[in-house]
Amino acid sequence: MDYSKMCPKYEAAIELLGKKWTGLIIRVLLGGPKRFKEIKEQIPEMSDKMLTDRMKELEISEIVKRTVYPEMPVRIEYELTDKGRHLQPVIESIQDWGEHWM
Amino acid sequence: MDYSKMCPKYEAAIELLGKKWTGLIIRVLLGGPKRFKEIKEQIPEMSDKMLTDRMKELEISEIVKRTVYPEMPVRIEYELTDKGRHLQPVIESIQDWGEHWM
Repeated sequence: MDYSKMCPKYEAAIELLGKKWTGLIIRVLLGGPKRFKEIKEQIPEMSDKMLTDRMKELEISEIVKRTVYPEMPVRIEYELTDKGRHLQPVIESIQDWGEHWM
Repeated sequence: MDYSKMCPKYEAAIELLGKKWTGLIIRVLLGGPKRFKEIKEQIPEMSDKMLTDRMKELEISEIVKRTVYPEMPVRIEYELTDKGRHLQPVIESIQDWGEHWM
């Protein structure tokens, strides 16, 4: 890897993943499809508005897919796309480092 | 890995690494010890004040070590500690993902 100059794709990835709560939301979704309430349960300090905003951003970035099930009452689930699932090595390397050094 | 509940060490790692510019600074320092000016060259959009603040935080977190060489003029270099160097898998996994998906 060439550390002698910055890489725009790395910068773009950091910009996306470094946003507050995003790293936590992706970790939750690696556990499988989740409803809004289930994500909140693992990240209780995050406000509803913040989670709503982040999920919209993650949908636009095609990291998260939102599915509406037309049941009564309606059920909405969020899951990682292929692009999102490929973040697993990133999340796991942060977990490993955190366990050892934090 | 257990995705069914949040891990405080993961949260702490994300809190530290997710700060604006930190992911870029660590990438630069994986290339070896650098002077302030050399870090700035790779991240020109970052202000001097911002870099100064981040380097202080990274010193306090023991991710970066600052060495003053008593030359004329004095030379100051920043390098990763052992804790900081162990972030290499994190940085590389972000780079890999970014290259493929951004």
